[in-house]
This record gives sequence, structure tokens and C-alpha cells, in this order.
Amino acid sequence: MTEILGILAGICTTVSFIPQVLHIRKTRNTASISMGMYVVFCTGLALWLLYGIQMQAVSIILANSVTLVLAVYILVMKFKLG
Amino acid sequence: MTEILGILAGICTTVSFIPQVLHIRKTRNTASISMGMYVVFCTGLALWLLYGIQMQAVSIILANSVTLVLAVYILVMKFKLG
Repeated sequence: MTEILGILAGICTTVSFIPQVLHIRKTRNTASISMGMYVVFCTGLALWLLYGIQMQAVSIILANSVTLVLAVYILVMKFKLG
Repeated sequence: MTEILGILAGICTTVSFIPQVLHIRKTRNTASISMGMYVVFCTGLALWLLYGIQMQAVSIILANSVTLVLAVYILVMKFKLG
């Protein structure tokens, strides 16, 4: 039961970035997105990834890899669109 | 060493939402922020919080409580400002 909760939580916080990516692709607008947020957030995700690798925890590695790809895309678009 | 990595990672992914909150307070603009992202993300954080409570894991409870407060604020501002 607790593990199902953890898996559901991980799926939600990971896939939540998909609507933001789609929103940016559709509108080509990132004006109200904070660059600082995504710089610190991507750094945090990279650290979570290293933590997962050191812990050999597949779920941490998987969830944070996917989120990192989505968050880096948002950061790159913020750099491009301003 | 691994635990320091986890703590640093948790601090980064938690505090990263502070610049986004400040950005919204300054600009009063949330047009390029995806409501769908914050609805799913807040749901995920609430599930992480329940997971932390069930696991009696103070660090999971603490990190996700702080992030949830910040993310709910962003979601409320998105509802208000559109």
C-alpha cells in the first residue's frame, strides 16, 4: 500500500512537467517562467540522479531521469524565448 | 557522502520554487505557466507527503510540505491571474 502511494506520487511529480512542455511548444512563450527556478531545479534533479545511482535505486534513477529531460527542455526554451 | 547528496538534492528541488514565487509576485503574470502541471504536481506532492507520513520519514515530510506550500501558492496565483 505504502509503495503504491510512492509509485503514484513519483508518476505524478514526473509526468506533471509534460503539460508545461506542451504549453511552451504551443504558445512559444516562457515570460512568466522563472529561469532561476529551473536552474536550481535541474541541479537538484541531477543530484537526485547521482543519489539514485549511488543507492542503486532504480525508481529514483528512472523518475529523476525523465523529469530531468523535461526540466532541461523547459530551461533551454526559457534561454531561447526569454 | 550519499546522504549529503540526498540532502543537497532535496534542498535544491525544494527551494527552486522560491524564485518562481518571487517572479510571480513581481510580475503578476502567470500566462506561460501550465495549470495542468501544477494541478498534477501538487497532487504528487500531497501523495509524497502521505508516503512520508506512512514511512515516518521526517526528511520526506519536511521537503514535500515546503514544496507543497510553494506549489499551491503558484497554482492559486495561476487561477487568479490566468
